[in-house]
Amino acid sequence: MNAHNSNAPSSPKKPNKTGQQPAKNVLYAQAGGVTAVINASAAAVIETVQQHSDFFGKTYAALNGIKGVLEEELVDLSDISQATLERLKFQPGAAFKACRFDLDPLDHNPAQYERVLEVFKRYEIGYFLYNGGNGSMVTAQKVADYCGQHGHPVICVGVPKTIDNDLDLSHCSPGFGSAAKYLATSFLEATQDIISMHETSTKFFIMETMGRNTGWLTLSAALIKDIIPDVPLIILPAERAFNEDAFLRKVEALTTEKGYCVCAVSEGLQTANGEYISIASIEHTHERDYIQLGGAGTTLSHIVAQHFKRKTHCAIPDYLQRSASHLVSEVDWQMAYGAGKAAVKAALEGLHGVLPIIELTSIEPFTWRYKTVDLNVVANLEKTVPDAFLTEDGMDVTEAALEYLRPLIQGERSVPFKKGLPDSRLIEFTTVDQQLTPFTAIK
Amino acid sequence: MNAHNSNAPSSPKKPNKTGQQPAKNVLYAQAGGVTAVINASAAAVIETVQQHSDFFGKTYAALNGIKGVLEEELVDLSDISQATLERLKFQPGAAFKACRFDLDPLDHNPAQYERVLEVFKRYEIGYFLYNGGNGSMVTAQKVADYCGQHGHPVICVGVPKTIDNDLDLSHCSPGFGSAAKYLATSFLEATQDIISMHETSTKFFIMETMGRNTGWLTLSAALIKDIIPDVPLIILPAERAFNEDAFLRKVEALTTEKGYCVCAVSEGLQTANGEYISIASIEHTHERDYIQLGGAGTTLSHIVAQHFKRKTHCAIPDYLQRSASHLVSEVDWQMAYGAGKAAVKAALEGLHGVLPIIELTSIEPFTWRYKTVDLNVVANLEKTVPDAFLTEDGMDVTEAALEYLRPLIQGERSVPFKKGLPDSRLIEFTTVDQQLTPFTAIK
Repeated sequence: MNAHNSNAPSSPKKPNKTGQQPAKNVLYAQAGGVTAVINASAAAVIETVQQHSDFFGKTYAALNGIKGVLEEELVDLSDISQATLERLKFQPGAAFKACRFDLDPLDHNPAQYERVLEVFKRYEIGYFLYNGGNGSMVTAQKVADYCGQHGHPVICVGVPKTIDNDLDLSHCSPGFGSAAKYLATSFLEATQDIISMHETSTKFFIMETMGRNTGWLTLSAALIKDIIPDVPLIILPAERAFNEDAFLRKVEALTTEKGYCVCAVSEGLQTANGEYISIASIEHTHERDYIQLGGAGTTLSHIVAQHFKRKTHCAIPDYLQRSASHLVSEVDWQMAYGAGKAAVKAALEGLHGVLPIIELTSIEPFTWRYKTVDLNVVANLEKTVPDAFLTEDGMDVTEAALEYLRPLIQGERSVPFKKGLPDSRLIEFTTVDQQLTPFTAIK
Repeated sequence: MNAHNSNAPSSPKKPNKTGQQPAKNVLYAQAGGVTAVINASAAAVIETVQQHSDFFGKTYAALNGIKGVLEEELVDLSDISQATLERLKFQPGAAFKACRFDLDPLDHNPAQYERVLEVFKRYEIGYFLYNGGNGSMVTAQKVADYCGQHGHPVICVGVPKTIDNDLDLSHCSPGFGSAAKYLATSFLEATQDIISMHETSTKFFIMETMGRNTGWLTLSAALIKDIIPDVPLIILPAERAFNEDAFLRKVEALTTEKGYCVCAVSEGLQTANGEYISIASIEHTHERDYIQLGGAGTTLSHIVAQHFKRKTHCAIPDYLQRSASHLVSEVDWQMAYGAGKAAVKAALEGLHGVLPIIELTSIEPFTWRYKTVDLNVVANLEKTVPDAFLTEDGMDVTEAALEYLRPLIQGERSVPFKKGLPDSRLIEFTTVDQQLTPFTAIK
């Protein structure tokens, strides 16, 4: 076994360790919302497969997730250079493009499943590692099941990632720690700006975080208590109904006591009636209405400004919080790298339809490992902020929340700069020459 | 002369180098909008005065600018520790608080001027170094003039700072380079996120920058061309009237050609009729209406979404762009430190009513020095983006703009982290015991 043969083309025809059959190839794909460290998972998949070149054949990536499989948009990563692998490890965005596209149910569109089978057969794909959201990973598993039922067994393993931290059973989600570190740092710096201003100027500042259903990202702003212990803070997580009166009373009380007030709010904040505080837009499709959130911070900023006749300010980092690769958490980066590694290990063990999730092995020191769970079990769950992490009024965090969040943002990773900016030049990947008839029945 | 006597209390009574009169004390204050590096200027003032302890007496800082003088809220910095000085060098916000408060005209409120004279006399202030906006610095000079006319000569020197880069005559403003580096980095990371998304998802992203009248911060986003040379970019600086038709045509052309489009817009963008694209709020006072800007990005994001029936996203970094001390430009930091140093040097030379500004001494390599200009001359000027920096359609930058901007964001400075966050604990300063009758006629 050659552990570092990145430049040696692997032979898809050599036997695997059983000596009975030719080594099968690996297909990796990304889908859905990105994280600042998703490409670290990609690098881990590639490197770990390389380390098991006696077992696996080639490594391919599909562009745009499962859509790239249908369209035969595949990149052969067997000859990827070490330099490109190193660049992948700090590249923001999704290096292999992350389309939010899922297959239709099998009975609605069997042609899609036949096509995937056709592509998988032609490229001798035996392992499908899918770095997507819960729903996408379950679809990936279903298509792998279909392949198996039609004479082409495929092991499907999920690779976890989400800044939202809503992946259940797992201690946390790879990608969350970096977004949390970025948000807490930004909130800390802005808070010190607010503190330095006079009482006649801006003394209420709000930052809107992502999080449609869960308030994990919002809670992460509270980590600034480790630097400013007595910060007058309001946290409005998506899980708790917004009570305008209670909110305004708390703003008033904190401002009276401390001279200022800072607030973090989930974009998905709702009233007790289940209405979003703010909707950016609603997209009507023939299948459903897609509500794009955004503006909760602006809305609350206006409410405070009008109620107290004071100047307020609102920051909306938006995509910045999921792509800030200049400020990732080392712990989170290791978790993202570990996710890719664990997925390949699961494939090695022949585990199909599983997802590696993070299990704590020690709190102090903070250590963890990956274990696998059934994809179908975890996919239907959603990890929300527990009551124990919020104060009774639901607008502040408890020490338990800080104890949970703190380890996830530890450590920094430096990125190379070029001409004053992170050197994240686009990594160009060449797709393989298409061998099949173009697929026209995509949707 | 002892160049590093930070812990030795300086004697206010020792003679200065002329041997004729006791050394006068120095008063430093901050006012107006902060920058990520304003406290580097404060550290430079303190350290440079220390290096000239044969000439200067004590160093005081007023809290909240000139308001702290009226209220006798003064900090004696003579005994500041080296550790505190080092922390000042990366502390965000305004360490000495930056009130947007100016004295009334002398004939409206002579009591304010008498009060400053009273405080300056009691504290033997002979040098007043004011790190504020143009208007504040001119007021500072007027009050120093008043002191001189009433038998207490005071040398007043401005210390430049503004993220807006609208300080004229100076090559650039200390504070701008760091905000530009933060914005360009953020815009780069978000753009890579957009690139990695599929054509059916978000392919228009906009970032709103500060800049009421000038588009310098908006232009800085264009620096991402150094990393993504062919980026389909639209720049909407405050100086150019917004033409919705031309804008939408450009969005369409770029999206058709490249598959996506990213845009940076000044919060102060106006239509040809002189109307702001978006106003956050209007504050009515008995003196004037203060228009708080904000929302131009959201407005344009909605316009694009509705016109093209596409998903769009908008980021509004707000205060984050002026307080991101975790990502300052080394060149800018040196300029901010140099500004404090140059102000003390001007005071040493007895230059009253001047402002140190940056003069280039070489383009390649990029070198510069401070020279002084008359405060009154520069205060009434505003440096706007020249036509040569914008393409003919006014919606993109020229190579000349990049050549101007590029040197200002070079170099990084690491900040110490604690528990995963920048260790910017608040620096507590103790004010001196008040010796005078409280001043009640502030405004």
